Amino acid sequence: MIADQDIAGAAHAGNAGANAGHLRTVYTFGGGVAHDDPRTRDKTITGGKGANLAEMATIGLPVPPGFTITTEESVRYLQEGADFSAELRAAVAEALTHIERTVGKSFGDPGDPLLVSVRSGARVSMPGMMDTVLNLGLNDETVQGLAATSGDERFAWDSYRRFVQMYSDVVLGLDHGLFEEALEFAKEENGYYADTEMSAEDWRTLVAEYTAIVEREQGAPFPQDVYEQLWGAIAAVFDSWDSDRAKVYRRLNDIPGGWGTAVNVQAMVFGNMGETSATGVAFTRDPATGEKVYYGEYLVNAQGEDVVAGIRTPQYLTRAAREAAGAEPASMEEALPAAYQELAAVFDLLERHYRDMQDIEFTVQQGKLWMLQTRSGKRTAKAALKMAVDMVAEGLIDEREAVLRVDPMALDQLLHPTLDPTAPRDVMTRGLPASPGAASGRIVLDADTAESWSARGEKVILVRVETSPEDIHGMHAAQGVLTARGGMTSHAAVVARGMGRPCVSGASAVSIDLKARTLHIAGRDLAEGDTITLDGARGEVIAGQVPTIEPQLDGDFGILMEWADRHRRLKVRTNAETPVDCRMARQFGAEGIGLCRTEHMFFDTGRISAVRQMILAEDEAGRRAALEKLLPEQRADFTAIFTTMAGLPCTIRLLDPPLHEFMPHGEAEFADLAETIGVSPDHLRRRANELHEFNPMLGHRGCRLGITYPEIYEMQARAIFEAACDVTAQGGDPVVPEVMIPLVATRRELAILRKLVDETAAQVFAEKERTLDYLVGTMIELPRAALMAGEIAEEARFFSFGTNDLTQTVLGVSRDDAARFLSVYVEKGIYPRDPFVSLDIEGVGQMIALAAERGRAARPDLKLGICGEHGGDPASIAFCAALGLDYVSASPYRVPIARLAAAQAALRG
Amino acid sequence: MIADQDIAGAAHAGNAGANAGHLRTVYTFGGGVAHDDPRTRDKTITGGKGANLAEMATIGLPVPPGFTITTEESVRYLQEGADFSAELRAAVAEALTHIERTVGKSFGDPGDPLLVSVRSGARVSMPGMMDTVLNLGLNDETVQGLAATSGDERFAWDSYRRFVQMYSDVVLGLDHGLFEEALEFAKEENGYYADTEMSAEDWRTLVAEYTAIVEREQGAPFPQDVYEQLWGAIAAVFDSWDSDRAKVYRRLNDIPGGWGTAVNVQAMVFGNMGETSATGVAFTRDPATGEKVYYGEYLVNAQGEDVVAGIRTPQYLTRAAREAAGAEPASMEEALPAAYQELAAVFDLLERHYRDMQDIEFTVQQGKLWMLQTRSGKRTAKAALKMAVDMVAEGLIDEREAVLRVDPMALDQLLHPTLDPTAPRDVMTRGLPASPGAASGRIVLDADTAESWSARGEKVILVRVETSPEDIHGMHAAQGVLTARGGMTSHAAVVARGMGRPCVSGASAVSIDLKARTLHIAGRDLAEGDTITLDGARGEVIAGQVPTIEPQLDGDFGILMEWADRHRRLKVRTNAETPVDCRMARQFGAEGIGLCRTEHMFFDTGRISAVRQMILAEDEAGRRAALEKLLPEQRADFTAIFTTMAGLPCTIRLLDPPLHEFMPHGEAEFADLAETIGVSPDHLRRRANELHEFNPMLGHRGCRLGITYPEIYEMQARAIFEAACDVTAQGGDPVVPEVMIPLVATRRELAILRKLVDETAAQVFAEKERTLDYLVGTMIELPRAALMAGEIAEEARFFSFGTNDLTQTVLGVSRDDAARFLSVYVEKGIYPRDPFVSLDIEGVGQMIALAAERGRAARPDLKLGICGEHGGDPASIAFCAALGLDYVSASPYRVPIARLAAAQAALRG
Repeated sequence: MIADQDIAGAAHAGNAGANAGHLRTVYTFGGGVAHDDPRTRDKTITGGKGANLAEMATIGLPVPPGFTITTEESVRYLQEGADFSAELRAAVAEALTHIERTVGKSFGDPGDPLLVSVRSGARVSMPGMMDTVLNLGLNDETVQGLAATSGDERFAWDSYRRFVQMYSDVVLGLDHGLFEEALEFAKEENGYYADTEMSAEDWRTLVAEYTAIVEREQGAPFPQDVYEQLWGAIAAVFDSWDSDRAKVYRRLNDIPGGWGTAVNVQAMVFGNMGETSATGVAFTRDPATGEKVYYGEYLVNAQGEDVVAGIRTPQYLTRAAREAAGAEPASMEEALPAAYQELAAVFDLLERHYRDMQDIEFTVQQGKLWMLQTRSGKRTAKAALKMAVDMVAEGLIDEREAVLRVDPMALDQLLHPTLDPTAPRDVMTRGLPASPGAASGRIVLDADTAESWSARGEKVILVRVETSPEDIHGMHAAQGVLTARGGMTSHAAVVARGMGRPCVSGASAVSIDLKARTLHIAGRDLAEGDTITLDGARGEVIAGQVPTIEPQLDGDFGILMEWADRHRRLKVRTNAETPVDCRMARQFGAEGIGLCRTEHMFFDTGRISAVRQMILAEDEAGRRAALEKLLPEQRADFTAIFTTMAGLPCTIRLLDPPLHEFMPHGEAEFADLAETIGVSPDHLRRRANELHEFNPMLGHRGCRLGITYPEIYEMQARAIFEAACDVTAQGGDPVVPEVMIPLVATRRELAILRKLVDETAAQVFAEKERTLDYLVGTMIELPRAALMAGEIAEEARFFSFGTNDLTQTVLGVSRDDAARFLSVYVEKGIYPRDPFVSLDIEGVGQMIALAAERGRAARPDLKLGICGEHGGDPASIAFCAALGLDYVSASPYRVPIARLAAAQAALRG
Repeated sequence: MIADQDIAGAAHAGNAGANAGHLRTVYTFGGGVAHDDPRTRDKTITGGKGANLAEMATIGLPVPPGFTITTEESVRYLQEGADFSAELRAAVAEALTHIERTVGKSFGDPGDPLLVSVRSGARVSMPGMMDTVLNLGLNDETVQGLAATSGDERFAWDSYRRFVQMYSDVVLGLDHGLFEEALEFAKEENGYYADTEMSAEDWRTLVAEYTAIVEREQGAPFPQDVYEQLWGAIAAVFDSWDSDRAKVYRRLNDIPGGWGTAVNVQAMVFGNMGETSATGVAFTRDPATGEKVYYGEYLVNAQGEDVVAGIRTPQYLTRAAREAAGAEPASMEEALPAAYQELAAVFDLLERHYRDMQDIEFTVQQGKLWMLQTRSGKRTAKAALKMAVDMVAEGLIDEREAVLRVDPMALDQLLHPTLDPTAPRDVMTRGLPASPGAASGRIVLDADTAESWSARGEKVILVRVETSPEDIHGMHAAQGVLTARGGMTSHAAVVARGMGRPCVSGASAVSIDLKARTLHIAGRDLAEGDTITLDGARGEVIAGQVPTIEPQLDGDFGILMEWADRHRRLKVRTNAETPVDCRMARQFGAEGIGLCRTEHMFFDTGRISAVRQMILAEDEAGRRAALEKLLPEQRADFTAIFTTMAGLPCTIRLLDPPLHEFMPHGEAEFADLAETIGVSPDHLRRRANELHEFNPMLGHRGCRLGITYPEIYEMQARAIFEAACDVTAQGGDPVVPEVMIPLVATRRELAILRKLVDETAAQVFAEKERTLDYLVGTMIELPRAALMAGEIAEEARFFSFGTNDLTQTVLGVSRDDAARFLSVYVEKGIYPRDPFVSLDIEGVGQMIALAAERGRAARPDLKLGICGEHGGDPASIAFCAALGLDYVSASPYRVPIARLAAAQAALRG
């Protein structure tokens, strides 16, 4: 075990800012302090970064001493109008003394100055927040002291220029381009290519230019008072919690605004003190594959931000990784073997301590290792799966923990198609395989374009030099992301992995002309709008569109799913209406069909004209004639589905949408149809006009069609029962058809239509001389149905909550029209998330709970399920589990997600 | 008092069909039987007609003996598949014996046959039911006996032919045209003009032809067995309960299908036994004006159906009425003075007994008066008012009873405009003033045309030779009804009065050519589609359209309203947005504005282009520029309204509809607007397209506009508060503006917008140096708002239930699209009434009750009201009263209806 015995300083009373009756506002860590207060290691109080720094210090790892201002203080600061309390000022002063004592330097001491880093640290890692100010405490005087004590003048002035630039950017809010421009100009003037060519004198000259820029831009000199610097940085962290970017990120990630952020102030250690110094980031296992190998990048003679920012291309951590990549620059294992061995020991200790893969930041200062951060590392779905299964085998965690470890939504990545390996690929260039998966789409060159093209239904690939938090909405809208710069831990890579989007980063052969909206990829000319394909697993950038194949799931997936199935109580069905989908869903573990939308079958080109003939018929006889043609087709559909789903229950929803949806659209279609069915195009258009509705969502649809044109539902019921009899006659396992009547609002609607279905079943059974089990039930998708659930349950054997329509009617929001205001609504916190993606539990959930309760009171064996998009959303599934529903139904690809989410709900609940 | 001492026969045990443990299926009346069972006089058991016959017999009036089969038997018969129970057969046989004993004749006796009438009699009078078969018991043998005992062969054969024709029509279902044709042919052959010229022999020949027609048409001879005749007629009454016409009537009148109908079988008395015989119908007061004068019609030597059917034009009952009309034929008072005096005494007795105006049928057989029916008479609203007020003065009823006596909906008739008496009238002809009121519209010649033209927004007048129950839907759709035949008590007259439609009946100068779709009115040629005007109070048929004037309400109205106001607890406000409407509503007693829809003001031609400019603006600045133009206009609107409503609360709803509603429609409008605001028509069309919504009802409207474009609501709030300050500054009674935020679904929406309104109010008050009371509240019109009412109430000072939208969302039915299925839904009993007309109490009512409870729990002084169409519907008002709401809001003309309905609700419980 590694002790922080090198850190001098007496143990003292513990934490600063402790007043009787008050909760502490500041907690110190490192330097051998005793952490008696559990709030020290509580992420909700000291943030993720602060809590883990305290934790690492406690278990004896080498952590530079520092202190954390609590999240509560940031909330108070923002609420009370950007003012620091006297109590906080006193506590910070006391905590600063703790650092000074520990490292034996004084803050602002011109002779031997203490430098600190200031970092934000919310409960969860959050792009969009002010990240870091390093080297704080430098000014025109202390820089001299740093030069003297380090014996390295160039280091001291390089540190100062870094500080001025960073502080000006993140604290003073000046345009960082101004500073980069000045640096580029200085290098050009001197004929340098790399920063490393800059001498101490060059840096000193540049610092003078930097401070002149600051004075010009903000009308005040760069702050020389180190305390002013410190409070400025603390204020900037606090303020960044309310920045637009942070708000967008919180909205996309369901992070409450009330959490606030902590501030971590820590003694600087330096990775840029020559060739025995370095800085790096690492994962204790491979975050892309999950393999149990150390994984990471480092840079010699650099500070932390150099690695993450992707400005210099980092080197590998291990020799094996370097060799596998065929790279030249020495790995850390080779270049700094002692520090590497110490680091490897830390990796093992941290994994045993946290029982999870860790994402680590470290610095080596002149051969000495310092830990700057640890946290549970983000990972691909594949890696999450493998790690969860491996860690059970290693005895680190148990099955239940493993099931809880994998984010159900992350499975999405594993379940989607990858590129067909046999298809020809016109690979234009390669970058880093930053996030797995494959996607094709049209090139877009900025986030706004990505969003607007995507909103109109285009699949797009966002191509950027590098991404920043401002690009998040564009990444969200895109199918995949390609960047010209940045490594595996660059912003683009981390965010894309989190979103499950394929990403190729650091593809340096890509250059972009934003004005001309064109780009060059390895010598080829392309323009915004051209189609490309990304293979995120291989880092390939491919011209045009490449065909995809179904995902091959490995054993870890099966093992985890088996564990999940052992614990879940909710059944998982699928929404499917084709044999292909049904087969896919069965492979994914679907336990039946929860929603077969029969109208999808009506759109088939072979039968749409019979459907249109039915709609156009002037009377029942005309409709019956057209329905006669549709009967064998529908029967064949159901036969195929029942064969595929043999032995499982299948919920078939009778025709639901307004009839006008089936009408032709263009002039040509009208003319064609008119000829086909022998009426005039004028007649057709008149009829289409008659069928038009102002609010089709609330119009003549669902069971209202069944009530007014019973012959339609009669045909569908006949097709269902004939198919079920035929499949059984051929020796297949019998399915249990569950005939579902949509859009019911009253008991009587269901009574009338149930009678129709029962009578049709009886007729078919008599004709086929066979009897089968079947159920008749209803969707609960209108508030009135939920309210009357007690009565309706007397006619229904099952309820399926149609949460799409129920959300529309309970909230009074049309899904098709919500785009215009729903994003504003989520931004303003009116709804925490898009209620069509994640169930509005407070409102819609209340209706569901009420209906479930009333329905079960009337019929204790009532089967309850949920269909609609929410059936594949983990938060909504957790709600369904808590309510004791019998099943959820999701689209085939979401079935595994639902299985896992259901297991997690059971384990948590 | 008149006793039925002329009716012979021993008093016997009481009622037939009495078995221990069974409720009786048949009740006898007349002939001095003791009515010990209260079910005898219970309309729900013996129907309206049967119960009143029993009642009249009990109080000693001359009622021909008979019996009533209960309503329960008809329900049983229809449910059990058209089969009579043995018990019923036995009870009928026993009851028939009662009649035979009483009148001393035997049913089917060839020598001296008992003849009976068979009539339906549901709980309420119901057109569409089988009405009557008279003279039942006649066959080829008994007709001889009747001829012998009456000494009048012509009478006997006339009765027989009437019976064959009536029975064939209503029981056997044969086309009555066949019989009329045969009669016409017989008269023509004999050179006769009137039926009275037909001799006994002529009738005998016609009977032979009639029975031949029956045998040819139904393939079986006319039934000679009198018991077969009787059971056939009973079955026909039972079956007629389920006829389509009866169902339509029940639907229109909210009569449950489960009530069933009773059957009344009664000894015949004959108004057609010569010049001392007569038959008539009468009201104890004038049903049109309410005056306390006997009112009625009679025909000498006729049977009942001759008066009602309108085939012969009847004579007046009283001399005064005859003289006032300048008519020649003797009144009953003059022609049959003794019977008339007896009748007048009966009138007085019945009014004292029933404490209400009675509608009576009677027959005089050879000088002897017989009562065949009494019931509370239908009346015009004016008459209902006058009678209610008069009867209080007469001491018949008290104030409370008077308030309960007037159907609130009937007030509609009194409150609508009448024809301007100073306007020129081109009176084409006159008919009977069958139902008061005035209306203009285009002529339609059948009910279906009336319905379809009306559905597309045309005002129509239904013109028919005479109306029948098949025409009811057309009468409903029409503004008024004109018939060429029929009297004041004809079908057209009775139904039109009930509906509050003006009607001119018996306008014999009207002749119709249905094939050519033309008509002649007193020599003028008109065609379907031409506009005419009816003055129902004068019986005038006027060419073209005549201007109307506001109704003048007389003292009775004021008196009754004062009584109503004394008893009601609910306040009544109005929905109004113009000073004219506001003044009207105040005159009608409105106690404030419950809903001022500000969007109506936006459609004004003077400002629509500023509104459009606002919508088209690309950004907030552009919108603000346009809103600047609208501000003074809106302020002027509110100033006018607040001045008119001084001293009363005014609820102003901020902008609600989707913005695209304000966009231009045709090409010309687009071009005009483009020029006005200086953009291209293409730009305009593109923007209109962008604004288009798939389901605008659930789209970007209501508070969603306020959230996304706060400047709109800010302008409106400013206009409200500036106007309120200005009106108060000018010394007017201050109004209390109640600013209402529409379409709220979450607490946060209201919190954000309430803050906006409060801030605007504070600004205006500071500028105007004045502070006013005002409230901010919300519509509850979404299910989510109802569910979250507890939270929302913390931000709201009042809730106004927007029942139109709430009905749409709770039921999932768009009001604009419901026509296609809602009538089928009401026919099938899925909804008892159109839920947009009368609140769906079971479903929507449940949501309202829940919201009221949760809202009041959170804020005990929360003000609760209802706006929307239901605020003027008595059943919905009763629900609001039961729930303890504070007010209802209705359109100005409905304010008195609401006042009266609120009083009735309070009085009933």
